[in-house]
Amino acid sequence: MQIATVALGVRSLRAAYRSGALTPHDVVDEVLARIAARGDDGVWISRSTRAELHEQAAALRSVDQPLYGVPFAVKDNIDVAGLPTTAACPAFTHDPAADATAVRLLREAGAIVVGKTNLDQFATGLNGGRSPYGAPESVFGGDLVSGGSSSGSAVAVAAGEVAFSLGTDTAGSGRVPAAMNGIVGLKPTRGLVSTAGVLPACRSLDCVSVFTHDLDDAADVLAVLAHPDPADPWSRPVSGYECSSTRIHSRVLVPTGLDFEGDTAMEAAFAAVAERAEPVGTTPVGPLQEAGDLLYTGPWVAERLAGLESFLAEHPDDVLPVTRAVIEAGHGFSAVDAFRGRHRLQELRAWCDRLWDRADALLLPTVPTTFTRAQLAEQPVARNLVLGRYTQFANLLDLAAVAVPAGTTADGRPVGVTLLGPAFSEDRLIATARRMTTWEAA
Amino acid sequence: MQIATVALGVRSLRAAYRSGALTPHDVVDEVLARIAARGDDGVWISRSTRAELHEQAAALRSVDQPLYGVPFAVKDNIDVAGLPTTAACPAFTHDPAADATAVRLLREAGAIVVGKTNLDQFATGLNGGRSPYGAPESVFGGDLVSGGSSSGSAVAVAAGEVAFSLGTDTAGSGRVPAAMNGIVGLKPTRGLVSTAGVLPACRSLDCVSVFTHDLDDAADVLAVLAHPDPADPWSRPVSGYECSSTRIHSRVLVPTGLDFEGDTAMEAAFAAVAERAEPVGTTPVGPLQEAGDLLYTGPWVAERLAGLESFLAEHPDDVLPVTRAVIEAGHGFSAVDAFRGRHRLQELRAWCDRLWDRADALLLPTVPTTFTRAQLAEQPVARNLVLGRYTQFANLLDLAAVAVPAGTTADGRPVGVTLLGPAFSEDRLIATARRMTTWEAA
Repeated sequence: MQIATVALGVRSLRAAYRSGALTPHDVVDEVLARIAARGDDGVWISRSTRAELHEQAAALRSVDQPLYGVPFAVKDNIDVAGLPTTAACPAFTHDPAADATAVRLLREAGAIVVGKTNLDQFATGLNGGRSPYGAPESVFGGDLVSGGSSSGSAVAVAAGEVAFSLGTDTAGSGRVPAAMNGIVGLKPTRGLVSTAGVLPACRSLDCVSVFTHDLDDAADVLAVLAHPDPADPWSRPVSGYECSSTRIHSRVLVPTGLDFEGDTAMEAAFAAVAERAEPVGTTPVGPLQEAGDLLYTGPWVAERLAGLESFLAEHPDDVLPVTRAVIEAGHGFSAVDAFRGRHRLQELRAWCDRLWDRADALLLPTVPTTFTRAQLAEQPVARNLVLGRYTQFANLLDLAAVAVPAGTTADGRPVGVTLLGPAFSEDRLIATARRMTTWEAA
Repeated sequence: MQIATVALGVRSLRAAYRSGALTPHDVVDEVLARIAARGDDGVWISRSTRAELHEQAAALRSVDQPLYGVPFAVKDNIDVAGLPTTAACPAFTHDPAADATAVRLLREAGAIVVGKTNLDQFATGLNGGRSPYGAPESVFGGDLVSGGSSSGSAVAVAAGEVAFSLGTDTAGSGRVPAAMNGIVGLKPTRGLVSTAGVLPACRSLDCVSVFTHDLDDAADVLAVLAHPDPADPWSRPVSGYECSSTRIHSRVLVPTGLDFEGDTAMEAAFAAVAERAEPVGTTPVGPLQEAGDLLYTGPWVAERLAGLESFLAEHPDDVLPVTRAVIEAGHGFSAVDAFRGRHRLQELRAWCDRLWDRADALLLPTVPTTFTRAQLAEQPVARNLVLGRYTQFANLLDLAAVAVPAGTTADGRPVGVTLLGPAFSEDRLIATARRMTTWEAA
């Protein structure tokens, strides 16, 4: 079997390994060949050497391991022992002593770490252009932004360089680049996947996320990752999480009042998906946006600053000006502001919780429109906020989310939609998204 | 039957009503007589008139109502329709249009509102002396402080003026005055009892609490109060809460490193209780105190300010100087401080959660020592903090607590101990406390 004919996915590789058609050594070589073929695509910050990859392949225990021989990429704000963690800030670089818990679990399940991927510096941004290591282009081309902050991890999967990748998602970093590259971006419930060994952005909101080619692969990776972790104080004690493969009938709500920034092609594409989802009702988008606004234009920006204040003070010239400006806005908020924001958020959470009395999931566009890298450069802060308009609220409202590709606009740009549900509803969201994907194919 | 021979408690009244020995009208008259007999004890800020009390008694539906004809008092930061809410600040007074949810539930269960009780202004304080309506003395006399902030509610029960009362408890306001007056103070889990209609102190931590003569009465009142409330965004969706009367075997931990401020009589009294509790182990008290310190000497003081900032600015002379000084300390904290405090708290919560792997409850002294009103006046802030040393952490760490009387010191002062357990462990805590009370009697 020619390896080029095997899709580099979790389940397709499993089948090929079990049939004996492939070995992990073959796959490692193919991964390196594909990376080389893409050349300097701005995806990678550091990589395991060929020798190290073959060593990982040789050390695998059993073809029955759930991720036996599956190559994956890791966003460079997540520690991998043996590779530096840069957070896309060279002056910040350190050599971690150990794998992040998420990486350790994946390795123990048989997955192979290919390398560390580019990101918006300190995971602050949603466009993929805020990095000294380059601004990856979306695999859809046309100078479209990759989306961020998990830019490299999304493109690595979409370009077929790896089977899956880890991102992080505080404001939408695990969903926006999925939409911009036509892949699946699963943002688990806060605390379901350990963040031990992950550089904090907003520590109370940060999630490790997963990019895959399809929903089955996302479910398989999440099943490995979802474990309580005593090393992470934000880990939540949900033991025995299992992704169900049952096709559950989900009642879907679609928000009213969506603003596509005049992108009528995107609006039409979303309307078509929403119609096929047979929504049971609507809900105004306002409270969702109000919650999301707390993040970058409200007091939660101070949570970013809480982690980086001393580094910013000591390295004034080593941080991108846009990144520094965004994070230092946190100085403008008092503790009173923070508590008032928390109080308002609680009201919005209570509003959101009541949605689940009449539905199981919300369906939104992942991004309201797309931008090219040139457009982003014109308005780097305002257009970044546009990209996060329909993702930012998810962690504040304690939601789980799965971003799925939904074809293209009439003019050939990627369309992404996201299903969001209450905490720990991943299995139901994945099942609902599967049903939508089936409609897509039908 | 002479009413004076009937203890004014929830269960004793129920028995007397069901046997026909008493009517609610008799009890209302007796309550008024007892209040009159105590004279100006600083307990009450406002009261229902005799006519209103008889009207409430006449309107009762059925002797089968769980709190049929049971007279109770309400701390004056909780709304009762028809009586002003002052929060012990005359300039703040307003006339609420409706009962707080907790009061409404009690009325619906047949309980009779006698009046509104004194408190440390804005529920800020733990000593009972910060009020223009007087500083109640503990029922133990000797110029001992009543404890606060729920001073009047605790003394009203301890002095036999009512069967039970509502307090609030953010830092210990529902437990410290229970200890100072030899009664039971139940502080439910955050969100188990609605705070709709309660003036916020620290909104994310505030609880409505219950003072009773004994544990059975506390369990009965909690069973009426414990309901999810759509009107309160902080309400937690625990439906079907029931106080169990089962005697569950609880494993108790006793902290090491306790500091009784040199009060050797109190230390000896606590040691005797701790020995009878047959603890399964110990745990250092340090992390509990560190969590508690976040409240008055850390960023959470800004949460108090968040609710009162504009009132304080507009009424500089209408607030007690000590109260204003304590609350305005909140100006000294930034949003970065607030998030750093939140991050540290999460680590302390994770530490605390691990305690429940080896035990079901923590046993602590409710107060490390007692103070007279004269002693409190000498050091009004420092000695207030001493009173809260072993209560302040409970809501930050998301614990349930029940404060119970444990006799007196060799020199005749009240001894109180508190059992604390994880969220929603009220039934187990009450059962464990019952067992301890039984030992007391043995």
